[in-house]
Amino acid sequence: MSDTPRPRMLTGERPTGPLHIGHLFGTVANRVRLQASGVETFLVVADYQVITDREVAGDLAGNVREIVLDYLAAGIDPDAATIFTHSSVTALHQLMLPFLSLVSVAELDRNPTVKTELADSGRALSGLMLTYPVHQAADILFCHATVVPVGRDQLPHLELTRTIARRFNQRYSEYFTSPEGLLSQAPTVLGTDGRKMAKSRGNAIELRASADETVRAIRSARTDSQRFITYDPVERPEVANLLLLTSLCTGVAPEVVADGIGDGGSGRLKAVLADALVAHLAPLRARRALYAAEPGLVADVLAQGNAHANELADATIRDVRELMGMVYR
Amino acid sequence: MSDTPRPRMLTGERPTGPLHIGHLFGTVANRVRLQASGVETFLVVADYQVITDREVAGDLAGNVREIVLDYLAAGIDPDAATIFTHSSVTALHQLMLPFLSLVSVAELDRNPTVKTELADSGRALSGLMLTYPVHQAADILFCHATVVPVGRDQLPHLELTRTIARRFNQRYSEYFTSPEGLLSQAPTVLGTDGRKMAKSRGNAIELRASADETVRAIRSARTDSQRFITYDPVERPEVANLLLLTSLCTGVAPEVVADGIGDGGSGRLKAVLADALVAHLAPLRARRALYAAEPGLVADVLAQGNAHANELADATIRDVRELMGMVYR
Repeated sequence: MSDTPRPRMLTGERPTGPLHIGHLFGTVANRVRLQASGVETFLVVADYQVITDREVAGDLAGNVREIVLDYLAAGIDPDAATIFTHSSVTALHQLMLPFLSLVSVAELDRNPTVKTELADSGRALSGLMLTYPVHQAADILFCHATVVPVGRDQLPHLELTRTIARRFNQRYSEYFTSPEGLLSQAPTVLGTDGRKMAKSRGNAIELRASADETVRAIRSARTDSQRFITYDPVERPEVANLLLLTSLCTGVAPEVVADGIGDGGSGRLKAVLADALVAHLAPLRARRALYAAEPGLVADVLAQGNAHANELADATIRDVRELMGMVYR
Repeated sequence: MSDTPRPRMLTGERPTGPLHIGHLFGTVANRVRLQASGVETFLVVADYQVITDREVAGDLAGNVREIVLDYLAAGIDPDAATIFTHSSVTALHQLMLPFLSLVSVAELDRNPTVKTELADSGRALSGLMLTYPVHQAADILFCHATVVPVGRDQLPHLELTRTIARRFNQRYSEYFTSPEGLLSQAPTVLGTDGRKMAKSRGNAIELRASADETVRAIRSARTDSQRFITYDPVERPEVANLLLLTSLCTGVAPEVVADGIGDGGSGRLKAVLADALVAHLAPLRARRALYAAEPGLVADVLAQGNAHANELADATIRDVRELMGMVYR
C-alpha cells in the first residue's frame, strides 16, 4: 500500500449551455483520462458564475441537466466523480469572507481574465466578476483539491488560489494545500466559421447533436479557395482545424491526414472528418441517450455529489472557524 | 388585533473589544428603547468584519463574550432578542453571490465609508473591506429587517442595501423589503482626551469598568484653563462633553448643569459627573455581574440566537435559489 494520497482534481464550468466538441477535445476528454488514471474527480457546475457577465441566467435547470448528461456521455463516472452545483453547497461560500480579507483590491484588479471579461462584456464590472477568482479559490480549497487542470489564461487565477492558501496558512495555521496546475496540452478547436468555438456564435457542434446534424455542420464549415489540402495552421487555419479534428478523432497526425487527401480537396476532407467524428462521437451519444432516458438519474447524480460536497465544505468551514478563533463556547 | 407586523431591527457591531459609554449613549441605549417599544431585535456580532482592516482578530472569543454581556447589561432582553455571530450563520454568506452580481465595482468604490476606512487603515484596501457593504446588505436582508438604526455616515451603506433589494426584486421577483433607516439623534460622546471615544485611544470608559475606575477616568479627563463653566461645544469641546455626559445621565439640559456649577470649576463639574455616571451605570453593572456569574449563559444566548438566525437564513436562501431558478430536480 502506498502512503501517497490519491490526487484530487477540481474543475468545472458555468451552465450557460450544452457542451460542444470544443469542450470535449479542449478539457473534458482530459478529465476523463485523469479520472481513469486514478485522480479523484470534483466537477462544479458554477451556476452563480453565470451571472458574472449577464443579467439573465436563462434556463439554468435545463442547462445544468444537459451539462451533467454531457459529462456522463464523455465518460465521467457518476459513481466515482463528485458533480455538484455551487448554489447547493452553502458552506463553500462562507470561505469567501476569510479569503476576501487575504487579497487586496489591487490584486483583484490586476487579474488579466477579469480585465478581458470586462472588455468582452462591455458593461460596468460587477462585484461578482471582480471577486470570482476568490470564489474559485473557495471551490478549489474547500475540497482540498491538489490538481487543477488549467489553460494558460487561467494560470493567474490558480496563482491567486495558491496565494490565498499560503497567506491563510501563514496567518492562522498550516491547513490548506496549495494546488498544482495541470497545464493543458490540448489544442484549441475552432468553430465551423474558423473562429473560437462557442455556442453563442452558432459555430459549435454540440455533443448532444445527432449524426445528421454533425455531418451538416461539417459540410457547412468554412475552408479556403486552395484545392490541394495541406496542414498549415498559420496560413490556412480553417482547413488546419478540420485536419486537427480528424486527427483528434483518429489519432493520425494532421499532416498525414492532409497527405492522404491531397487534391481530393475540401469536399473529400469534410467527408473524411464527418465519418471520423460521427464514429468518434457514436459511443458518447449512445451513452448519453441511455443516461437521458433513465428517469431521475441526473437528479440522483447531483444529489449524491451535492451531499458529498456539503460534507466536505461543512468540515472545512468548521476547521477554518476553529483556526480563526471563531468558536464561542 | 393589528394587521401591521412588528418592525424588525438589525444592527450590531464588530467584536473588537468591550463596549464603552460612547457605544451606550450613541447606539445601545437607543436599541433598548426600540426593543421596549415593541421592535423585534436582531444583533449581529460581526466577527468576520474584524479582519476588514486588521490582520489579527485578537481574542475573538473573549470579545464576543464581553459584547454579549454588555448588550444584556444595557437592557437587551436575552429571551426576546436574536443575538448571533456571523461565522455561525452559514447561509447568510451565500447571499453575497447574488448580491455581488447586482452591484458594480464603481458603486462599491464610491462608498464614502470604504474610502474613509481605507485612509484610516493606511494599507491596501482588502477585498473584504471593499465588499463589506454587500455583506451588510446580506445581514439586513437575510432576516427581512425593516428598520436599521444608522448614523449619518452609514446612510450610503443602507442605500446600497436598498439598491440591492430593489434590483433583486426587479430582476427576479418581488421578495425583499427595502429597510428604512432610523437616523440616530444621539450626540457623539468624546473620550476623556476630547477626541472621539475609542478603546484603541485609551480614552474610553468601559461599561464593565468599576465605579472606582470610572471616577478615576473622569478625574483624569482633559478640560481647559477657564474656571467658569459654560456649555460651548465649539469653543470648549472638552468641558461641553463632560456637561453632555452629565446631561445624558440625569436628563438635565447641559446648559442648566453648567449654570449650576458656574465658578465651581472643572473640579466641581467632574465630581458632579462622576456621581451621575456611577449612579446611571450602577443598574447596568449590577445586571452585568449577575449575567457574568451565570455559567453557560452567554453560550446559551448565542446558541439560541444562532439557531434562530440560521433558521431564517436557510429559509431565505431556499427562497432566493427558487426565485433565481437554481433548483434542480
